[in-house]
Amino acid sequence: MIAVTCTAPVNIAVIKYWGKRDEKLILPINSSLSGTLNQNDMKTTTTVVASPDFDRDRIWLNGREEDIQSERIQRVLDEIRKRAGDRKEASKEKLSTYKVHIVTVNNFPTAAGLASSASGYCCLVYTLAQVFQVSGDISTIARVGSGSACRSIYGGWVAWDMGNEIDGSDSRARQVADEHHWKEMRVLVLVVNDKKKETSSTAGMQNSVETSKLIQERVKIVPGRMAQMEKSIADRDYETFGQLTMRDSDDFHAVCADTQPPIFYMNETSKRVVDIVKRYNRTCGKTSAAYTFDAGPNPVIYLLEEHVSPLLSILTHFFPSDEKNYVRNVPDVENVLKRELPKGFEDIEKRVDGLKSGPDLRPCLRHRSFCVMRRESLEWNEKYELQRMPEIKYN
Amino acid sequence: MIAVTCTAPVNIAVIKYWGKRDEKLILPINSSLSGTLNQNDMKTTTTVVASPDFDRDRIWLNGREEDIQSERIQRVLDEIRKRAGDRKEASKEKLSTYKVHIVTVNNFPTAAGLASSASGYCCLVYTLAQVFQVSGDISTIARVGSGSACRSIYGGWVAWDMGNEIDGSDSRARQVADEHHWKEMRVLVLVVNDKKKETSSTAGMQNSVETSKLIQERVKIVPGRMAQMEKSIADRDYETFGQLTMRDSDDFHAVCADTQPPIFYMNETSKRVVDIVKRYNRTCGKTSAAYTFDAGPNPVIYLLEEHVSPLLSILTHFFPSDEKNYVRNVPDVENVLKRELPKGFEDIEKRVDGLKSGPDLRPCLRHRSFCVMRRESLEWNEKYELQRMPEIKYN
Repeated sequence: MIAVTCTAPVNIAVIKYWGKRDEKLILPINSSLSGTLNQNDMKTTTTVVASPDFDRDRIWLNGREEDIQSERIQRVLDEIRKRAGDRKEASKEKLSTYKVHIVTVNNFPTAAGLASSASGYCCLVYTLAQVFQVSGDISTIARVGSGSACRSIYGGWVAWDMGNEIDGSDSRARQVADEHHWKEMRVLVLVVNDKKKETSSTAGMQNSVETSKLIQERVKIVPGRMAQMEKSIADRDYETFGQLTMRDSDDFHAVCADTQPPIFYMNETSKRVVDIVKRYNRTCGKTSAAYTFDAGPNPVIYLLEEHVSPLLSILTHFFPSDEKNYVRNVPDVENVLKRELPKGFEDIEKRVDGLKSGPDLRPCLRHRSFCVMRRESLEWNEKYELQRMPEIKYN
Repeated sequence: MIAVTCTAPVNIAVIKYWGKRDEKLILPINSSLSGTLNQNDMKTTTTVVASPDFDRDRIWLNGREEDIQSERIQRVLDEIRKRAGDRKEASKEKLSTYKVHIVTVNNFPTAAGLASSASGYCCLVYTLAQVFQVSGDISTIARVGSGSACRSIYGGWVAWDMGNEIDGSDSRARQVADEHHWKEMRVLVLVVNDKKKETSSTAGMQNSVETSKLIQERVKIVPGRMAQMEKSIADRDYETFGQLTMRDSDDFHAVCADTQPPIFYMNETSKRVVDIVKRYNRTCGKTSAAYTFDAGPNPVIYLLEEHVSPLLSILTHFFPSDEKNYVRNVPDVENVLKRELPKGFEDIEKRVDGLKSGPDLRPCLRHRSFCVMRRESLEWNEKYELQRMPEIKYN
């Protein structure tokens, strides 16, 4: 029996992946680029136990057994076993014939547009690769589980190059800059809604490719935007980075609105956060915070360290909460919450459709120092440990 | 002194006007088509008093004096006076030199995306035309006040042909079918929000023309859609009419989302109404109700008489209200509100993000029998009467 536990991080794209040219191989119609987030708070933890004694593969997600026959999981298992090293065990059986029991847990809401499938499939593939002794680039295996999972294989800034090959061999992740490159970069994850979303990304992007006229325009624009984005990161040019980030998010949601039937991932609270970010940038006289929305209503804000405290004080002013842990993972949080509203925001409540009257951000506001996960930093325990899932017993 | 009072109706487009090729002459980049609504409930009432004794033009809107120097009002006044008949008065002065006092009242929310500028400018132009004895097509004058106002000049189904001429002389309204043509057609106007909207149509469409890629695609699609829409009305083919109506509304709001900065006119309640309409159509097994949204969150539903009662009972179930006059202008309203929820809707509350949890439709639901206004039916009183605005006195 072999048991391995690993954790993997979430990534949040600043140039979005939306639309496949091949549904089975998960080959995208445009390249994308993301930041990989710190695992301090949001992460997936996966344990894989492989044994010649198991009669079949099984998987538990967040404590509930799920269907192992899911096409995506099967693709991943097939690919891993195909590439498995063939070391002989004491049992004299080939490792690749061992059945697996997989236990995977997200410590944040699943399928709510918080990139749970990215960390989930990344973690599954990475853990399986340890168990089956697979070496070489595994981002292409993560990709066939869930496209954007391939970007979570690396820390820092990661591109997913769309590739040209029919077999998808060149459609893989590439680290653009590591997590030490832009030390001042921070990320705020605002949890507006942690319920499972109504339109899955898979179904949504399929409809977009089939019915949106705008998606064809977007595909033409992205290559130039990718180049600009990589340069802005290389130059640590926040002004360009922030503008491109917001523009790409806006374009993605315009494609969603142009889809039949239309998809609306952003809700009223999302739009209020957009208003606050815009107002904040106007008040600063430069781009100081950049919103981006994945396929859900939760705003993610990329910003430099110096702006975390003032922007958080504005957000908590307009979205107050008495809940403990409403704001998490923010250094010096007591002082941040005591800060006065910065100048230029005093009158915001007087506006038509005042911000305060809107729906609240549900707990929690999370602040993460940016992208500490690296491939090397994944935890790898040969020890069999399933302490998170005590109800599952092996003999 | 001459005094004339007229009223004019609202129109709601099923193929939307969005984007100008000429800002001054208000020449659109695509043709559009609307239904003109009954004046039973929503209308503009305008009184124009012209006198050689007035020293300047003045205007009062909803009881407050507004700036008569507004570019649009000036364009209308100039055009009317240019075309004025030159009958001599007892005073020996030319009629066209008389100054005017204008008093105009909407009996519904202004600038809230309820087509108030359409009825407003239509009424202004029509009333001024009576005062100054202007004959011939006045839809081009209404157009330079507010584009879609030209469509309110006629009752029934009205096209605004975009035209080709540089001077705009062929960009005018044309009656496609009169109000007797499709007797079963009804319109529900659902007032989600009666506050003044944040992005005016004028500013919004200007931004769309400048920044949206999608608007160029839309412009190519509309001519074919106009032809199909006219045919569906001629044939009283509700299936085609309804599908085109919803598609065009979706396309228009996709253009808004594709605008920089993005414009979101629809809110959560709007989207819930869309959900209900879609569910209703699925339950009926055919297109039985068609939503459309102007530049605001208020849903307007075109449907045949037989579907008014079942759909209203669903809407009032999910958006209940104790307010008197919540539902207005609905024949047999007591029975409609007592109806049971139709089959297929019992489980709708169990869905994720259940409809009941959303924000309510604020008063009121309005139901109007369709398009009774005709040009001939405009009221025209030579009598000087300003009973709606008693605070304004003339000597």
